[in-house]
Amino acid sequence: MNANPQFLAATAAVDEGVVAPLPNSRKVYVTGSQPDIRVPMREITQADTPAMMGGKAGAERSEHNPPVYVYDTSGPYTDPAAKIDIRSGLPALRERWIEARADTDLLAGPSSAYGRKRLDDAKLAELRFDLKRRPRRAKPGVRVTQMHYARRGIVTPEMEYIAIRENQRLDALPELVLRQHRGESFGAATPARITPEFVRDEVARGRAIIPANINHPEAEPMIIGRNFLVKINCNIGNSAVSSSIGEEVDKMTWAIRWGGDTVMDLSTGKHIHETREWIVRNSPVPIGTVPIYQALEKVNGKAEDLSWEIFRDTLIEQAEQGVDYFTIHAGVRLPFIPLTAKRMTGIVSRGGSIMAKWCLAHHEESFLYTHFAEICEIMAAYDVSFSLGDGLRPGSIYDANDEAQLAELKTLGELTKVAWAHDCQVMIEGPGHVPMQLIKENMELQLKYCDEAPFYTLGPLTTDIAPGYDHITSAIGAAMIGWYGTAMLCYVTPKEHLGLPNRKDVKDGIIAYKIAAHAADLAKGHPGAQARDNALSKARFEFRWADQFNLGLDPETAKEFHDETLPQEGAKLAHFCSMCGPHFCSMKITQDVRDYAEQHGVSAQQALSRGMQEKAVEFVKKGGEIYNRE
Amino acid sequence: MNANPQFLAATAAVDEGVVAPLPNSRKVYVTGSQPDIRVPMREITQADTPAMMGGKAGAERSEHNPPVYVYDTSGPYTDPAAKIDIRSGLPALRERWIEARADTDLLAGPSSAYGRKRLDDAKLAELRFDLKRRPRRAKPGVRVTQMHYARRGIVTPEMEYIAIRENQRLDALPELVLRQHRGESFGAATPARITPEFVRDEVARGRAIIPANINHPEAEPMIIGRNFLVKINCNIGNSAVSSSIGEEVDKMTWAIRWGGDTVMDLSTGKHIHETREWIVRNSPVPIGTVPIYQALEKVNGKAEDLSWEIFRDTLIEQAEQGVDYFTIHAGVRLPFIPLTAKRMTGIVSRGGSIMAKWCLAHHEESFLYTHFAEICEIMAAYDVSFSLGDGLRPGSIYDANDEAQLAELKTLGELTKVAWAHDCQVMIEGPGHVPMQLIKENMELQLKYCDEAPFYTLGPLTTDIAPGYDHITSAIGAAMIGWYGTAMLCYVTPKEHLGLPNRKDVKDGIIAYKIAAHAADLAKGHPGAQARDNALSKARFEFRWADQFNLGLDPETAKEFHDETLPQEGAKLAHFCSMCGPHFCSMKITQDVRDYAEQHGVSAQQALSRGMQEKAVEFVKKGGEIYNRE
Repeated sequence: MNANPQFLAATAAVDEGVVAPLPNSRKVYVTGSQPDIRVPMREITQADTPAMMGGKAGAERSEHNPPVYVYDTSGPYTDPAAKIDIRSGLPALRERWIEARADTDLLAGPSSAYGRKRLDDAKLAELRFDLKRRPRRAKPGVRVTQMHYARRGIVTPEMEYIAIRENQRLDALPELVLRQHRGESFGAATPARITPEFVRDEVARGRAIIPANINHPEAEPMIIGRNFLVKINCNIGNSAVSSSIGEEVDKMTWAIRWGGDTVMDLSTGKHIHETREWIVRNSPVPIGTVPIYQALEKVNGKAEDLSWEIFRDTLIEQAEQGVDYFTIHAGVRLPFIPLTAKRMTGIVSRGGSIMAKWCLAHHEESFLYTHFAEICEIMAAYDVSFSLGDGLRPGSIYDANDEAQLAELKTLGELTKVAWAHDCQVMIEGPGHVPMQLIKENMELQLKYCDEAPFYTLGPLTTDIAPGYDHITSAIGAAMIGWYGTAMLCYVTPKEHLGLPNRKDVKDGIIAYKIAAHAADLAKGHPGAQARDNALSKARFEFRWADQFNLGLDPETAKEFHDETLPQEGAKLAHFCSMCGPHFCSMKITQDVRDYAEQHGVSAQQALSRGMQEKAVEFVKKGGEIYNRE
Repeated sequence: MNANPQFLAATAAVDEGVVAPLPNSRKVYVTGSQPDIRVPMREITQADTPAMMGGKAGAERSEHNPPVYVYDTSGPYTDPAAKIDIRSGLPALRERWIEARADTDLLAGPSSAYGRKRLDDAKLAELRFDLKRRPRRAKPGVRVTQMHYARRGIVTPEMEYIAIRENQRLDALPELVLRQHRGESFGAATPARITPEFVRDEVARGRAIIPANINHPEAEPMIIGRNFLVKINCNIGNSAVSSSIGEEVDKMTWAIRWGGDTVMDLSTGKHIHETREWIVRNSPVPIGTVPIYQALEKVNGKAEDLSWEIFRDTLIEQAEQGVDYFTIHAGVRLPFIPLTAKRMTGIVSRGGSIMAKWCLAHHEESFLYTHFAEICEIMAAYDVSFSLGDGLRPGSIYDANDEAQLAELKTLGELTKVAWAHDCQVMIEGPGHVPMQLIKENMELQLKYCDEAPFYTLGPLTTDIAPGYDHITSAIGAAMIGWYGTAMLCYVTPKEHLGLPNRKDVKDGIIAYKIAAHAADLAKGHPGAQARDNALSKARFEFRWADQFNLGLDPETAKEFHDETLPQEGAKLAHFCSMCGPHFCSMKITQDVRDYAEQHGVSAQQALSRGMQEKAVEFVKKGGEIYNRE
């Protein structure tokens, strides 16, 4: 990408498709104990239930359906009151909280050699995000992680923000909509109402993380842990072959519009540094990276030329830009590498294969492993969370759960304890490609080896035979592993294994993963998880078409699909649909059944017990008859 | 739809997109014990492994990759040697087998009143498929079901055909590709090699069915049972609002091209009778229907006007056309209906709601239940299989596994035993909308109540919040319930709840369900199921791009996606891809690792044990270092 006026023009304008609120939706804020704790939610308003569908025969008044509140990852973009100019970035909502803790210093400028070099390069001026704020670092000898505060019993504003956010205003919903099935939680234990203290305790225990770099004050706090809502991550990033800065910023805003909870910038091309700055400054969600990618760029792609010094400088460079979590492949150890030789697909993690190559070239243990304590010190000084990378994850069903993978996982568990000793927040990356019957073993071993640190998996894909549809092969595995206890699911797009995702692919991947995450929340019995399903089902039954669309994950597509068969506006008020036509409407017949039951004075409870009695009698009588006929 | 010359023209031509063989694929036939047992398979040829990727450093010769054989549902359409003219229909491959059993009579013409009326209506001549063959029925007092033969120890040609088909020529594959993980089968027990006798015994036991109406001799025999490959069904059918005969035939051929194992014709509009005839005559897969839909048409949509006589005539009408299985909602009994009054979404099955309305209107037990033995007699005379309908299935997560649903399931179990007493083949329909944690209960209760009769479920959808994406919400549930033991999965398209599926929707639904079914086969450890995954993963690792596409479920889409980023032909020979670019290719680095291991004389087995030893030493040494640093 070259610096050019077109780029700057593009950055000034924001796509209307990204900032327009979703239909019947309004951004609302719930205020916490101090006025600057303003937690965003999306309020979806609903139509009243028509009297004829109200469940009460002859009802004269229609029934009011209160708005539903849903978790909102889209940040200020969907708030018409917010001024969006990506050249200025988002407001630094956490700035005052960080400052108030008085445990950080403002630096004169970047303290990484590379950061300074880029800043001093006049040729890059046009490309550079013009950040007025100086970077921050912990005062010497101090740790500034959310885990550090939590362990000292402190409830930070971030924790309170998260508690409000996770509760999703369930108190505003009627009992019918809140009723739900008992879950099967595999040891997850979410209280009916999440308190700031619960958030704190989970973070202190290492069972949840709050990725919140002190240099990313623009981020809206969120939490990753198996006693909270299951989250999803979306990968963006250019490669040497394709894509530009503007496109990547656009992909990020697009990803959070549809529900991305975090975004990983996996860029490997030129101008990684500048691209990242633009993304971080405009991102209301935590940003993750894989620093080894950029370190490799710095040695012109020659893995053997990598060194601890170059890697260290890269960590500091990115920590001072505000990256919230780093994937560190410190579990790819020299003795594990030969374990991959007999695999069907070898090492498929980019980071893993880079480190494997380095280890072999030098006959030495990985510098990520030998310098792990120093990495922890850096992470603790900026509150960058660890995402301990699974560099030896299986790349095919054939390689699932093999020795190499499990040896690495055990090592990640050991490293977790080292990181925790430094008050560093940690999550653990997981596979990959795993057939259904082996998914649970992954979760169980991760909980055991890593002492319940949050698990963050890529899918897993449950079969290899559907290139072009791996958002689906993997949504199956993701839903299951989310149910078993995985805290965050890294999305897979339909382009996986084939090419770089475009906008449509990103959205398709996100929706598939929102489905997986939500299905997991339902299965665990997460408090209130079923409310959105119930509200939507009620709307569906009552032929409130617009409400059905709007309560769904993608109102636009739902409406388009409906309109393909019945495009007329009137059809959306019709009490039947294209699938069955007016005579065959089962919903309508059900309403007749209800009216009938009502008219004949059969209260539901009576009907139930009477029905069961009759049934017993009938079984004997009719059953006898039937058998006699043979 | 009106009779018009355009329709006839349309029926003569067959879409090139439906008959062209898939890339690098060839229809082959495996011959059984008699020359007319010719079992079709799709042979996918592969390129050789380039010497540099062969796993042997310095290898001079490339490695040959033998063809892979996959189950082929597409019938003669994809055989360039077959003459396709849908006005003539497909060849009657089972005709001679049926005749040879000498237990059927050829009728003078349709024996249903309605069938005769339609045949005598001159106005319909233009619309009518011109069948030269006369309908067949069992000789008086005789049963002609596959179950009947099986119970008498007879191996029919259909059973032998199925045994060959299910084995998929696995003997032709190398050991590496055949290796697979141990499954978790929940009581399913598939032998390493399926024999005709095994097929017979499973059918005799009622654990599997072969839907094969004696009036549908065009069908290629297939089996539905949990010790066989998991199958998928695709629904097609017009409604009062949309669609024509030509479109429905086209949808059928389209559905089987992508892997539909059976097709249900759910038409509810005019000309149901004629539409069905065209579909059956041109279908190489079993056709299912819901006869109550047509019965309702005959009484102008007034459920209360239905009668046993009209229904009975409809069964005979359709049985003589060759429908292979009927959905019969005989479990919707009068006493269960009030159990649905408190539901969120009432009765969502069309058939179920029709019967509920009839029961209430007449204050009478369902005629499907009271006349069940007579229904069995009709089914046994044509070998129409039962698909016992779940008319009270849940239409929302809220209603999952409720009293109404389970009371009906228990009744279906009782009816199964009645049907079996008549030698009728039976499968049981299942839900619907079920959150993940409740799916297993469905399977377990079905096996228990219905004595292991095959289960045939619609999804289930694991959440209600994604209208427009219910092929995904339900593929998750389908994969899981398939793993637990469901024998056939009824697909759900993205249009579910919104509109009628078009061609793209049908294909999207099928691919999602082929994924679910295959993921289930893998998880159960079905013999050889992993071979296609292994072959594809090997191709992927070796950068055999075309092979990767062609071994997948949808070669066209995979290729399109790849070409979007790297359209040049050369890129498909390149040893890197658009995602990472040449420097970052993890596959290439892995190959370097292998070469390295080879060059240094580390055999894989040695490396493995040596690696583990070193690891133990390293853990102590390095681990100590790390902990000391804190």
